[in-house]
Amino acid sequence: MTQKPFFGIQACSGFARAGWLQTPHGRVDLPAFMPVGTQGAVKALLPSQLAEAGVQMLLGNAYHLHLRPGEDVVARFGGLHGFMSWPRPILTDSGGFQVFSLAELRRVSDRGVEFQSHIDGATVAMTPERATEIQNALGADVIMAFDDCVPYPCERDRAEQAMRRTVAWAARCRQAHAREADQALFAIVQGSVFEPLRVECAARLAEMDFPGYAIGGVSVGEGDPLMYQVLDATLPHLPADRPRYLMGVGTPVNLLECIERGVDLFDCVLPTRNGRSAMAFTARGPLRLRNLKHRDDPRPIDPTCACAACRGFSRGYLRHLFQAREIAAAVLTSLHNVAFYQDLVRGCRQAILEGRFPEFKRSFLETYQHPEGDETQ
Amino acid sequence: MTQKPFFGIQACSGFARAGWLQTPHGRVDLPAFMPVGTQGAVKALLPSQLAEAGVQMLLGNAYHLHLRPGEDVVARFGGLHGFMSWPRPILTDSGGFQVFSLAELRRVSDRGVEFQSHIDGATVAMTPERATEIQNALGADVIMAFDDCVPYPCERDRAEQAMRRTVAWAARCRQAHAREADQALFAIVQGSVFEPLRVECAARLAEMDFPGYAIGGVSVGEGDPLMYQVLDATLPHLPADRPRYLMGVGTPVNLLECIERGVDLFDCVLPTRNGRSAMAFTARGPLRLRNLKHRDDPRPIDPTCACAACRGFSRGYLRHLFQAREIAAAVLTSLHNVAFYQDLVRGCRQAILEGRFPEFKRSFLETYQHPEGDETQ
Repeated sequence: MTQKPFFGIQACSGFARAGWLQTPHGRVDLPAFMPVGTQGAVKALLPSQLAEAGVQMLLGNAYHLHLRPGEDVVARFGGLHGFMSWPRPILTDSGGFQVFSLAELRRVSDRGVEFQSHIDGATVAMTPERATEIQNALGADVIMAFDDCVPYPCERDRAEQAMRRTVAWAARCRQAHAREADQALFAIVQGSVFEPLRVECAARLAEMDFPGYAIGGVSVGEGDPLMYQVLDATLPHLPADRPRYLMGVGTPVNLLECIERGVDLFDCVLPTRNGRSAMAFTARGPLRLRNLKHRDDPRPIDPTCACAACRGFSRGYLRHLFQAREIAAAVLTSLHNVAFYQDLVRGCRQAILEGRFPEFKRSFLETYQHPEGDETQ
Repeated sequence: MTQKPFFGIQACSGFARAGWLQTPHGRVDLPAFMPVGTQGAVKALLPSQLAEAGVQMLLGNAYHLHLRPGEDVVARFGGLHGFMSWPRPILTDSGGFQVFSLAELRRVSDRGVEFQSHIDGATVAMTPERATEIQNALGADVIMAFDDCVPYPCERDRAEQAMRRTVAWAARCRQAHAREADQALFAIVQGSVFEPLRVECAARLAEMDFPGYAIGGVSVGEGDPLMYQVLDATLPHLPADRPRYLMGVGTPVNLLECIERGVDLFDCVLPTRNGRSAMAFTARGPLRLRNLKHRDDPRPIDPTCACAACRGFSRGYLRHLFQAREIAAAVLTSLHNVAFYQDLVRGCRQAILEGRFPEFKRSFLETYQHPEGDETQ
C-alpha cells in the first residue's frame, strides 16, 4: 500500500465504529454498504444513478469478469473503473464463493480449484496466484484473497481443511500480489460455524498483517442467530485497527446487528435483487409493490426518502410498471432500495459519531420490525 | 381547442415544414419524433432520461392503458402526465391499430369492435365513443380518432369499407369528445395502398375540419416505395394549415423522406426496440453491438453524439453488457437511440428553418447509407 494511511477510526459507540477508507479512487465513509456489480454493472442501474443515491464503493467479481469478458479486455479499458465508467472506489471479490456456488464439476486440492465455467462449460483452473493476477489486472482498490468456501451445513473435518487451506492461500495471494502500492489485499476468515476454527483462522490471518479482513462463509443458510455467534466469536480476534468486511450480508436488520458488533463494510445483492422482484425497503418495513392495495396509492415508496424514485413516482405507478413488466419498474425500485441502504449506513455512521448508536438502532428496529406494515401502508 | 393557436408553420423548404404545436403541457418543435410509451412508460427509460435526450412529446396507447391499469386508475393520478411523471406533451393513440394487431377473436361492425384482451382474454367492446371517453380520461394533449385498420395486403372492398367506417367513426369521436378545450382530436386517414381511397378519405376528413390529421395504416408490410406513394397521393389533400402525423414510422431514412414530403410528426418503436436488441443508430449507419469486433473498442456508439450513453460508455463495455444480459445494456442503447432520433429531427428542423433541407437530407443519407459501415466502424 501507499504511505498514506488506508483506514482510520473516527468514533466508536459500543463496539460500533465510524471511520473511513482512503483509496486511490477516493474516500469511503464507514460503515459502508457496497451494491453488487458482479459483471461490471449493478443490475438495472447506471453509475450516475448509484452516485446520486450516495454510493461510494461498488463490488465487482473476479470470477465473472475473468470468464466474461476476460480481465485482459477489462485491462485494455483502463481496468474496471474505466470499463464501467465508475471513478470511485471498487472492491473485487476473488471468486472463491462463486467457484463453489456456481461452477460445475469442481475439483479442489491444496493447489487450487479446477472447474467448468457456468457460462460455456470450459475448464478453468483457479489458484490463489491466478485469482490475484486477475484482480491485479482488474485494478480494484481493494482485492480479496482466494478462499476455500464450504457450504452449510458442513462436516467439521471439511471445514477445518478449508480453513487451513484458506490461510495458506491468503499467504500465496499476498506473495503473488503485484500492486501492493495501489490495491489493498484483504484476507478472508473461514471456518463455517465452528467457533474454534473461526478463532484460529482469525488469529493466524491477523498475525500475517493484512490491510483489512473479511468474514466469509456466512449468510449461506446457517440463519441469523448462528451468524451473529460466528461474528461474536471472530471479531475479537481481528485487529481493531483494520477494516472488517462481512461478505454477502444482508438485510437492514443484519446491518444494524453487525455494525453494532464492529463490522465496517458490507455487500449484498438484496437491494437490487429485491428491487427487480417488486420488493421495496422502507423505514416501516418492506412493501410488495405488486400487491393490489397499492393500485391507487399516490404516495411514493417511502415518503421520508429523497431518492429519484421517491421524488417522482407513486406506488400505484410502480405497481403498474411491475404488472406491465416494464424495465423501469426494476430500475426505479432498485434505485430506491440502493438509496435506502445508503441512507441506513449513513444514519448508523452519524449515530456512531454522535455516540448514540444504541438508540438509533432501537428506534430503527421499532419502526421497521413493528410496522403498521405492508398491510396498512 | 383553446383560443390560443395550436399549430403554426415557421418555414418551409420545398414541401418540408418547420413549425410548432402549442399544447396545455408546453410547446413541441416540428418536425418531431415521439418515443413510444405504450403502457405509460418508454421501455427501459425514465422521464428524466427522455427529457435529457431532448424529447418534447411522448406517445401513449389507450388500448393498453384501458386494459391495464384502466383509465379510471390513471385518471385518479391526475391523468397520464401525473401517472407517469411526464409533465410535457403526450399524444395517445386510440387503439385502433392495437385492436387489429394484438386482440383476438375480434368482430368488427359499423358500431365498433368486440375483441378479447391479449392480456387475460376478457371480452372488450370498443367503439369510437368509448375510445374517446378513455382518451378523455387519460388526458393527453393530443388524442386520436378510433379507426378501422386493415392489414396489408387487403382487398379493395375491405379497404373501402374500413375507410368509410373510419370517416364515420371520426365524426362520432368528435361528437363524443368532452375535452375539446384542452385535447386536440386528430383524425386518421385510412385506405390501404389504394390511392383513390386515400384521396377520398383525406378530402372527407379535411372537410370536417379537425385540428390535426394522421396517416395510418402504413408501415404494415407494404414497403417503403408504396408508403411514399401513399403519402404523395394523400398529403396534397390534407389542409396545409394543420399538423400531419405519420403513425408508426420509421427508420431514419423514412423520417427524412417523409419530412421532405411534408410530414410534421412521427412515432415509432424502432429506437427503443432496437436499443433492447443491441442495434445502435449512428450517423454512419447502424451498429450491431453484440458483434465481436466491438469487444476492445474504446469509442462510444457515436463519437459525434453528446448523449449520456456516448459521454460515458464504450462500444466494448456495451458489448459486454449485452453479452452478460445486463439491463443497463438496454437502458444505455435505448437512451442513445432516442437521442439520435431527436438529434435527427432537430437537424431537419434547423435545415428547414435555414432553407437547406435538400442539402441536409443528401448529406445525411450519403453518410448514413454509404457508411464505412458496421464492418469498419
